[in-house]
Amino acid sequence: MKQTVATPGSLLLPGGHTLTSGQTLTTIEVAYETFGALDAEKANAILVCHALSGDSHVADGPDATGQPRDGWWSDLVGPGRAVDTDRYFVVCANVLGGCSGTTGPGSEDPATGRPYGLRFPLVTIEDMADVHAALLDSLGIDRLLAVVGGSMGGMQALAFARRYPGRCASVLAIATTWRLGAQAIAFNEVGRTAILGDPSFRGGDYYDEGQPRHGLAIARMIGHITYLSDDSMRAKFGRRLREREEHAFEFVTEFEVESYLAYQGRKFVERFDANTYLYMTKAMDYFDLSTGFPSLAGAVDGIDARFLVLSFSSDWLFPTYQSRELVDALKAVGAEVSFAEIESPYGHDAFLLEPVEQARFIEPFLSSVYAAEGVAS
Amino acid sequence: MKQTVATPGSLLLPGGHTLTSGQTLTTIEVAYETFGALDAEKANAILVCHALSGDSHVADGPDATGQPRDGWWSDLVGPGRAVDTDRYFVVCANVLGGCSGTTGPGSEDPATGRPYGLRFPLVTIEDMADVHAALLDSLGIDRLLAVVGGSMGGMQALAFARRYPGRCASVLAIATTWRLGAQAIAFNEVGRTAILGDPSFRGGDYYDEGQPRHGLAIARMIGHITYLSDDSMRAKFGRRLREREEHAFEFVTEFEVESYLAYQGRKFVERFDANTYLYMTKAMDYFDLSTGFPSLAGAVDGIDARFLVLSFSSDWLFPTYQSRELVDALKAVGAEVSFAEIESPYGHDAFLLEPVEQARFIEPFLSSVYAAEGVAS
Repeated sequence: MKQTVATPGSLLLPGGHTLTSGQTLTTIEVAYETFGALDAEKANAILVCHALSGDSHVADGPDATGQPRDGWWSDLVGPGRAVDTDRYFVVCANVLGGCSGTTGPGSEDPATGRPYGLRFPLVTIEDMADVHAALLDSLGIDRLLAVVGGSMGGMQALAFARRYPGRCASVLAIATTWRLGAQAIAFNEVGRTAILGDPSFRGGDYYDEGQPRHGLAIARMIGHITYLSDDSMRAKFGRRLREREEHAFEFVTEFEVESYLAYQGRKFVERFDANTYLYMTKAMDYFDLSTGFPSLAGAVDGIDARFLVLSFSSDWLFPTYQSRELVDALKAVGAEVSFAEIESPYGHDAFLLEPVEQARFIEPFLSSVYAAEGVAS
Repeated sequence: MKQTVATPGSLLLPGGHTLTSGQTLTTIEVAYETFGALDAEKANAILVCHALSGDSHVADGPDATGQPRDGWWSDLVGPGRAVDTDRYFVVCANVLGGCSGTTGPGSEDPATGRPYGLRFPLVTIEDMADVHAALLDSLGIDRLLAVVGGSMGGMQALAFARRYPGRCASVLAIATTWRLGAQAIAFNEVGRTAILGDPSFRGGDYYDEGQPRHGLAIARMIGHITYLSDDSMRAKFGRRLREREEHAFEFVTEFEVESYLAYQGRKFVERFDANTYLYMTKAMDYFDLSTGFPSLAGAVDGIDARFLVLSFSSDWLFPTYQSRELVDALKAVGAEVSFAEIESPYGHDAFLLEPVEQARFIEPFLSSVYAAEGVAS
């Protein structure tokens, strides 16, 4: 099998970018990677949008540091995969507000020469979509074959389609929602409260002293519980104790599930910026595809694209009923939409853990769009 | 309607109490309240066991301070209620390890003259049941008409029945489980991690300086999400903003659900001890009714009592399937068991919020047991 070469890129968007909030960013740097080759007609481009803790490294290959690293969706994106990089040109960019190369709260504020911290303006999913569009401009891509995303990435895909209704032939919205419900907002808020109240947070200006590890770990632990399902946790951990037969009768990590969460928390704080966690969760909470329209149907009316919507049966964070609401709205305006709820025990994480089931829908859908766009397949 | 007079009591259990852990407590003080009157045959006593954050004040009336205060289950316990204090003698005690009068980590350690803090031994649900039994001894009650509890209280009811299989004519196990699953343990562990990592925790010796408010509030916020259901949160809060029409684009409380959680967190730290939160959640995590037996059926075999098991359809913290496992085990050993899953949108909190539906099962069940025990009704 051919190796896809990940091509890292960096784009500097100059000029005053006005955000949804009305605030401006003087410059925005965008860290992105491309996989595969853009064809002569520039008609085989697919934009993949990453989730909360993701980055531009969607497929295997060397990342921006030159070191080989597994892609976060390499089972679905790569040579011969459902998103076939032998056929398609895949673009993936770290989102605005992120901490993996694109301008975010940890970036240098040109006004002060120091990291923005909480002086970084709040960004929305729509702002992220606008930056993606500017990146595509710079790559000379007028129209995408598809905009694809899972979870927060799916929100970006939907926002992109609404803001640029003629710029994508198709939209793949996976394990996502057109807006979060109260429970998901509540979990995000507890995570933010944990970060904001950590004494090491220092009002967001912690870059010299080290970040609020405790608060960020708490947020990540909560997140991980919501990414799994009760079923999958029972199957994975049950009530098994770690490295012991009997209870310790002390406040120590003893159940395997405790050890797993502690490990996930520790690992996350090594690679992710707490401020970005605040900004990403807020962007997700704010996102409502229907904002500015009388209804969700009104919001999706006029998007000239085919839709593939996938949800997972055990995903209680982005539950199927929310995907159905989106599908119903699309159908109401006559959009061409395919929808499947994939049976899986893996909860929200299924969009990362169930490549085979997803590929069964994604591969033929993309092939069909590719053919319909008039490109020889 | 007659007022039930709550009679507060305090019992000092002397001698070296050996706990499940093998550790001993030299003295245990038990804060309890009784409601109604014990009949001449001492045959109308019902022990109600409280949940994680409850106390002995199960029904309305003056509490230990002499001030009138609403009981935490006053819709179900009181004159003319399902647990009718005109007919039954209701006993409710703050649990061992609690912070509402019964000896717990905030109590004075006789060895040092200072609060125990984390030197307090870990207690189990079984230890709580043993202290309840000692309290009944002191009240001259050999046999209960019923032992009743919701949530952690239901665990105590089950543990009491198993340890004192001839001492209760019936067991009412409501919104509870014979053991927690991995997801519930995980949520408890995140709450504990938040408390233990709060710099104000000081290894549990915070009683002079003030308790770890931030960590305890986080734990309570997580708890509250798990006590509700997605449906009830959507109905109660949706995506409504509090006192504003538009997003703030700041890290402030703006969704109503955020405001609710923040309020619940603040309120809780005023009345509840963080160390007790650690001890209660650990006791719940450890609880497994089948421990020491080859199976759950083996554990409940020989309990000479009638059972009423109630679960709630939207309770995902103590899900119905766990109640069914208990019911199946009871049936397997020929126990007399009634079971109902009550349809409710209120999640785990339904055991506090659905008195009418519960009363429909509890009132006739208790009346039947009362009659069968040979007491004129």
